[in-house]
Amino acid sequence: VDEARTTVLIAIDWGTTSVRAYRVDATGEVIASRSADLGIQRVTGGAFGDALDALLGDWRTDPAPRIACGMIGSRQGWVEAPYVDCPADLAAFGNRLARTPGGELAIVPGARCRDAAGVPDVMRGEETQLVGVIAPDESRVLAVLPGTHSKWALVEHGVLVAFATFMTGELFAILLDHSILGRLAENRVPNSTPADDAAFTSGLERGLGSGGLAHTIFGARTLALVGELQPTRIRDWLSGALIGHEIAGARKWAADRGADMSRVRVVGTEAMVERYIAALAHAGVVAACGDANAAARGLWLIARRGGLVH
Amino acid sequence: VDEARTTVLIAIDWGTTSVRAYRVDATGEVIASRSADLGIQRVTGGAFGDALDALLGDWRTDPAPRIACGMIGSRQGWVEAPYVDCPADLAAFGNRLARTPGGELAIVPGARCRDAAGVPDVMRGEETQLVGVIAPDESRVLAVLPGTHSKWALVEHGVLVAFATFMTGELFAILLDHSILGRLAENRVPNSTPADDAAFTSGLERGLGSGGLAHTIFGARTLALVGELQPTRIRDWLSGALIGHEIAGARKWAADRGADMSRVRVVGTEAMVERYIAALAHAGVVAACGDANAAARGLWLIARRGGLVH
Repeated sequence: VDEARTTVLIAIDWGTTSVRAYRVDATGEVIASRSADLGIQRVTGGAFGDALDALLGDWRTDPAPRIACGMIGSRQGWVEAPYVDCPADLAAFGNRLARTPGGELAIVPGARCRDAAGVPDVMRGEETQLVGVIAPDESRVLAVLPGTHSKWALVEHGVLVAFATFMTGELFAILLDHSILGRLAENRVPNSTPADDAAFTSGLERGLGSGGLAHTIFGARTLALVGELQPTRIRDWLSGALIGHEIAGARKWAADRGADMSRVRVVGTEAMVERYIAALAHAGVVAACGDANAAARGLWLIARRGGLVH
Repeated sequence: VDEARTTVLIAIDWGTTSVRAYRVDATGEVIASRSADLGIQRVTGGAFGDALDALLGDWRTDPAPRIACGMIGSRQGWVEAPYVDCPADLAAFGNRLARTPGGELAIVPGARCRDAAGVPDVMRGEETQLVGVIAPDESRVLAVLPGTHSKWALVEHGVLVAFATFMTGELFAILLDHSILGRLAENRVPNSTPADDAAFTSGLERGLGSGGLAHTIFGARTLALVGELQPTRIRDWLSGALIGHEIAGARKWAADRGADMSRVRVVGTEAMVERYIAALAHAGVVAACGDANAAARGLWLIARRGGLVH
């Protein structure tokens, strides 16, 4: 295969800690990808051009247009791509692309919404994944993009109506690293050992209950204290409790917007998607996984809309 | 005043990070107190006797009986004083005192309860403060003891019916020290500057709402991002959000046990009690503060019951 001939777009998902580039063909399929630990937090002095060269390597000479989404479009990124406010037509993000000063990249804007109390929420990168996994003619999709900051999004007829962030992954990490719960845990490094499904499910059931999070998670300490949770199982119990809390909160969030949670689309990396699909199934929700290359596909669709590819 | 003559008890509140000793007279009043940074986590090699001597100083030669409550009675303390299970008659804790091997101290046991799902909760030290601030003939008292791990307790006719822990203080500390919210805050050291009441109230209202904590706290980031919360105000906004979440959770917890939250007794240090009373007032709850020397008074009452003083 002569890869160079078939590449119509170089699509880049550029986040806080890492960045991944894809070569995409004329049908929107990924030909190849490469990644680097060059998220925007790790690029010093605004040297984004050098970081891009390092990421692309011998792809640098490829004449295909380049498009990026994620934190690269934030105030701390290469150039700020102002947020699109909800309700936001996902198809229209291609009309709002920002450009780096030297023309190196087109950058997809993030999305912003406000809840009934006027408190804002924001995303950068996830809007592109939603474009990649939700067809414009789907009447209503409730999607979750798990991660450090999980996003739940409600999309109706191709319009991003509202979304909400849950700091699940970050809370998990700092509780394991810095709280009394982590000090009690014997294997506190995330994913360092196979997941303990029974401990996860036990924590999940606790998290799905109606108790406040600050109370619920203390159960990891008390169950360990009375010998009903082994120190090696605290990590997965806590993961379950936090994900259960997120699902319970999202269910209420969706209900407040007239959406039930009978079906959810899960978009993300394989291990995380599997964990959320299992958790949602346990909560009585039918969950389906979105395209694993959601970002690349979304970037291709946005690039077409923006006239970068035809 | 000849202090030595009037001291009938040396009462010690011995926690995880610090310890405080009180000389108590025959009416249960505190004559004098002294403290040291010799909580059980800071005593190495089980040298509790040396730590006690260092704390007491020239009080060492006082012949008055000595009693302690708190983590000193835990498995990591001097000698384990087994938990009393709820419902627990507060007056009966004096009948369950543990003794150190050398007879240096009598130690008050902690309390343990289980919720409807069978998940345990525990306290050590707070049971003694409850003894100090709640009369046996009060028909129903809902009390909160704010702190690193806030305790909410329901006491009926002198019986500790149930209680629940909220990790509010610890979450506040680790979010400020280790999360993205703390990185955005400009004065993240607790109490390093006067409390910003407006920011606290704004966060409190957010926390009192029904959103899940993992979503609610992300508001500190998004409000700052859109310029509606100054970086210097993030700390107090977050404090409000966490305390609001605790109050909302405790209200539901109490309601599940048939107790309304129209009145609450707040027990703790002055600054913390003030903050909780203000927060509760904002939530429509009449809050009264308990005795500032709750631990000393509780230890004196328990010592009388246990026959240490007459």
